[in-house]
Amino acid sequence: MSIILDGKKLSNRLALKLMAKISKLAINPKLVIIQIGNLDRTNVYIKKKKEFAEKIGAKVLHEKYPKNIQIEKVISNILKFNKDRSIHGIIVQLPLPKNFDTTRIIMAIDQRKDVDGLTAKNTRLLFDKKNGFVPATAKGILTLFKNYKIDLTGKKITMVGQSSLVGRPIALALLNEGATVTVCHTHTRNLKEETKRADIIVVAAGHPGLITKNHVSSGQIVIDVGITLKNGKVVGDVDYEKVSKIVKAITPVPGGVGPMTVFSLFENLVKAYLLNSSNL
Amino acid sequence: MSIILDGKKLSNRLALKLMAKISKLAINPKLVIIQIGNLDRTNVYIKKKKEFAEKIGAKVLHEKYPKNIQIEKVISNILKFNKDRSIHGIIVQLPLPKNFDTTRIIMAIDQRKDVDGLTAKNTRLLFDKKNGFVPATAKGILTLFKNYKIDLTGKKITMVGQSSLVGRPIALALLNEGATVTVCHTHTRNLKEETKRADIIVVAAGHPGLITKNHVSSGQIVIDVGITLKNGKVVGDVDYEKVSKIVKAITPVPGGVGPMTVFSLFENLVKAYLLNSSNL
Repeated sequence: MSIILDGKKLSNRLALKLMAKISKLAINPKLVIIQIGNLDRTNVYIKKKKEFAEKIGAKVLHEKYPKNIQIEKVISNILKFNKDRSIHGIIVQLPLPKNFDTTRIIMAIDQRKDVDGLTAKNTRLLFDKKNGFVPATAKGILTLFKNYKIDLTGKKITMVGQSSLVGRPIALALLNEGATVTVCHTHTRNLKEETKRADIIVVAAGHPGLITKNHVSSGQIVIDVGITLKNGKVVGDVDYEKVSKIVKAITPVPGGVGPMTVFSLFENLVKAYLLNSSNL
Repeated sequence: MSIILDGKKLSNRLALKLMAKISKLAINPKLVIIQIGNLDRTNVYIKKKKEFAEKIGAKVLHEKYPKNIQIEKVISNILKFNKDRSIHGIIVQLPLPKNFDTTRIIMAIDQRKDVDGLTAKNTRLLFDKKNGFVPATAKGILTLFKNYKIDLTGKKITMVGQSSLVGRPIALALLNEGATVTVCHTHTRNLKEETKRADIIVVAAGHPGLITKNHVSSGQIVIDVGITLKNGKVVGDVDYEKVSKIVKAITPVPGGVGPMTVFSLFENLVKAYLLNSSNL
């Protein structure tokens, strides 16, 4: 049996440290979560974030807008939160309903409050391997590797999935750690060949069951970033039952990357708090 | 013998079309090139750009600053050019002397005049596969592929080199075309293995002779982005003489990617001209 990379347990342990850090701050860090519409997926994500915030002593302002809200209204609210000194971080819960221009909305967020690390400036800082806000999922994966003492320098990593808000930032973050990264996607001709030769496979495709026992080799580490709601249950992109019998280590879904993402978001929030209060 | 991907010939042919386009504009598009210090390399690059501009009817304002200039002075000049309606594009000739913060200087350029495509906003647009200014080298390579009818969808491309201003933008541009891209660098453990298995090798390492006959297989396409001045001569990263006997197609240095980069810069300048004049 493989080692289970237990993101839930690690996140719980690290949460205690973050809670201790927050207890020393003058006021509680406050995150605005903007939700448009009422997707089941976004409801689940937001619930997890609120629960975590409560546990560590952070505040969440949940701004819930109807799916027919004007984009200008969303943006003017973001600009208001940018100026509001009692707000330390702002995120837009993704995915947005299809008719919204995600990029335009995200770009309205002040880079110093962009705790999801998705504005242009933070993207460029990640590109330049400089100190900005690293997107929570990418950061959570790096923290997981670090805590399990998995050094990425020179490792062959096959990244499956290349969305601009998840896959690509993860690929960049892995490059920044010195890994040799291959980015695969729907146009990739022989996915099995690409995954089987890797030291580490990171999957963020959003396709349950995409990675089967035929895609993996013994000795590999598998990180499953996929989150799909299926009959009310969260499932990943990897056939966990069969794959976990072959590989060396694997993240479960739920309880792997998900909790690490939530933890990293609030780690970024505390960073934003400290950054903004030092500029007062 | 392999097919020579003749960037010089193609650039000359496309320059005629660009010249025809420019001849129909109300005024000649004008590019500011900012040079700090007096590196041989930057002198060579700027000379090529000025020659090309003259040929097609574009104007160049060459701003040459001493290497001890204050960064604030450079930035305030950029801000002035941002506002100047007679200026359509602004580039900073790289590399800058070591003591300058390249990112900070580039970030001062208005995204609409960023014809090198290196500001945060254009980086994010490239990330999102949206319509911004694609960095000239990446764009030049895509144009070369297109004109030689080389479709990138599903192709395995090994990218050697991952600098934030050249290698990474090229890797993203190749991903945007549907290629499966592996990014290699100094930490990559077995470079030969990564290059030999590719359909296409793109090298932007700045190490003359890095890619030898032992790195390539027959049937491959090799794109050499390397530009190093060696005894007054421009040399690439590939051992051209030996590699060209094995592979299917290859770009020479000089006369390959270089002229395509210069052409693409001025293609971006004309795009910036049209973009800004439509906003008047």
